[in-house]
Amino acid sequence: MTSTPRNTWHDWLAAEAAKREEAGLTRRLRPRAADDSTIDLAGNDYLGLSRDPEVRRAAADAALTWGGGAGASRLVTGTLDLHAQLESELADYLGQPSALVLSSGYAANLAVVTALADRSAHIISDAHIHASLVDAARLSRARLTVVPHSDVDAVRAALEASEGERTLVLAESVYSVLGDAAPLADLAELCATYDALLVVDEAHGLGVHGPGLVAQAGLAGHPHVAVTATLSKSLGSQGGAVLGPSALREHLVNRARPFIFDTALAPAPTAAAQAALRVLRSRPGLSDLVRDRVRALADALGVVAPDGAVLSIPMPSPQTAIAAQSAAFADGIRVGCFRPPSVPDGISRLRVTASAGIVAADWDRAVDVIVAVAKEHQ
Amino acid sequence: MTSTPRNTWHDWLAAEAAKREEAGLTRRLRPRAADDSTIDLAGNDYLGLSRDPEVRRAAADAALTWGGGAGASRLVTGTLDLHAQLESELADYLGQPSALVLSSGYAANLAVVTALADRSAHIISDAHIHASLVDAARLSRARLTVVPHSDVDAVRAALEASEGERTLVLAESVYSVLGDAAPLADLAELCATYDALLVVDEAHGLGVHGPGLVAQAGLAGHPHVAVTATLSKSLGSQGGAVLGPSALREHLVNRARPFIFDTALAPAPTAAAQAALRVLRSRPGLSDLVRDRVRALADALGVVAPDGAVLSIPMPSPQTAIAAQSAAFADGIRVGCFRPPSVPDGISRLRVTASAGIVAADWDRAVDVIVAVAKEHQ
Repeated sequence: MTSTPRNTWHDWLAAEAAKREEAGLTRRLRPRAADDSTIDLAGNDYLGLSRDPEVRRAAADAALTWGGGAGASRLVTGTLDLHAQLESELADYLGQPSALVLSSGYAANLAVVTALADRSAHIISDAHIHASLVDAARLSRARLTVVPHSDVDAVRAALEASEGERTLVLAESVYSVLGDAAPLADLAELCATYDALLVVDEAHGLGVHGPGLVAQAGLAGHPHVAVTATLSKSLGSQGGAVLGPSALREHLVNRARPFIFDTALAPAPTAAAQAALRVLRSRPGLSDLVRDRVRALADALGVVAPDGAVLSIPMPSPQTAIAAQSAAFADGIRVGCFRPPSVPDGISRLRVTASAGIVAADWDRAVDVIVAVAKEHQ
Repeated sequence: MTSTPRNTWHDWLAAEAAKREEAGLTRRLRPRAADDSTIDLAGNDYLGLSRDPEVRRAAADAALTWGGGAGASRLVTGTLDLHAQLESELADYLGQPSALVLSSGYAANLAVVTALADRSAHIISDAHIHASLVDAARLSRARLTVVPHSDVDAVRAALEASEGERTLVLAESVYSVLGDAAPLADLAELCATYDALLVVDEAHGLGVHGPGLVAQAGLAGHPHVAVTATLSKSLGSQGGAVLGPSALREHLVNRARPFIFDTALAPAPTAAAQAALRVLRSRPGLSDLVRDRVRALADALGVVAPDGAVLSIPMPSPQTAIAAQSAAFADGIRVGCFRPPSVPDGISRLRVTASAGIVAADWDRAVDVIVAVAKEHQ
């Protein structure tokens, strides 16, 4: 007699899938072709630099010169001159003493938080913080206080309750869900007063606001402020970075496990980010254009303009959000759709990204389609 | 009266740096130039495919065709036809039903473990497991049992103690520190008997052993086995992958935060990995060559040959390990040096990587230098 062995894992995966299907929340990957002609207002290529000819060329040249990969982790033999150049140019542009490049923004956030905080530390985190910082705080095992979104008084109260612990305050310069800016000056002042370190993720600020909102607020180099950034949004590539005092960089090189135990960023994306940074510095009008566009779109929709390049349009339900997204796609426009569990407040949204990389006629048509679709599905 | 504000962070970073300096354990990044002529026996480009002309060309073409980055996370608009092709070809080569590509091997390990395990799960982890799996287990918050290295009886005892919990067993097909292979058949049988899931990291097995040791043991597609792999070692690029049943892939797409909240792997490294995989399939002799070389090196050193491409040479102290590494470098040979806290057992080592990508004369010279240096510093 034979019996079929139990397979709890198989059963559990099937049950989880059935729950998603029943809730209409199954998400699927939809590969796109190189010659895809839809207009992309869903991604994060805010300045269109991923497709810039100089960026493409730099990435291609690096692959030909250096090879397909860096071949090792950064501390072994994976650090290339390219990484050192990019780090120097990033630090210079953001007004920071030093930068360290990692293979993703997720890795950069994991690295800085886990290298600084452990069980003896206290992390005060904004409620709207990106998933990578949530995971970073969890991985660090620090005591965690989540404060209401952009509530400076709540941060002060948490800092008051932090006596004796090394304390990190986590914020984004521009939050990804609502597109609103953090009260950076107030947070930095509080961190100086209460002797904490403010870590600001510039993922959605860099490029859209030139060197980012930390730099624009005069907080670059502030002794109580560090910055993380991504190379995959305005810089059109892949990777992440941590910027701050050189003592912080040296600490990460020696202690940050997501840095130490990861292969170095490949030559092509490293060179792409460097080329994009140079284009951005030579054409500051790109930042103005993307902000003008998002403001014009917000006006057309009759909503408040965000501080970033992403406009969030609340929808009545996950189902209407998906229907509106499909309607826009049928008209040749890709927009994003955020719904539980990817949203901190349970509200489903269309997520529309302005980009300086879309030609004017396409941009105008996209605005018309989005305004019509949003009205229909409210 | 003004007073200098406290800066606990500054003081803490300085104290940590001083401790490292005093112990002689400060690690520094040493960028290398594109025309660097030293022979690299430190990285993980086991088959030399990072520098293969077809790989370079594929990466360059992808950058020119697709741009510098994927522009978004995979679930938004970041999934390219390139990713789908690579996933299909990887699954086919490893004999698995499906594959999911992520931006690093670290991310792949974090993704599979955290999407499967939570507080209600039990993780049984080999003591020599890679840091990324250690971090993954920690981030999952599952109950964790660390068992002695490759101790099948200890795994059985931990499985016995796992009644009622979903249980993961974590192993590497070839361990990175000692280069020894895991008892995969025994572990898979135990996982089937005790209804657990074995997750095998093929980072150091794929390529060195063709499609990896899971496939060679006839365990690909086993209902109680999943695999992770990296694209940055034998495949000469960057990125990672999770392979297994399609239900697992779908689960990760929907639930794995390190997948969902990360920008997709950039076009160039995606295409580089695909091209490397094709070269590997067309030239299986590459795998034989790297294994022949590591065996010959082990013979020359009078040590036991590892199952992987990396040979570990124990050294009396961290200081002698560094001195030996410097001596080899002075002779034009880069070798790795592992020392606390990067080693699980506190033993400092020279770490020498065989590669099929080094021309024969250089390889022979490298062997001579390493044998001489190892003898001098014992």
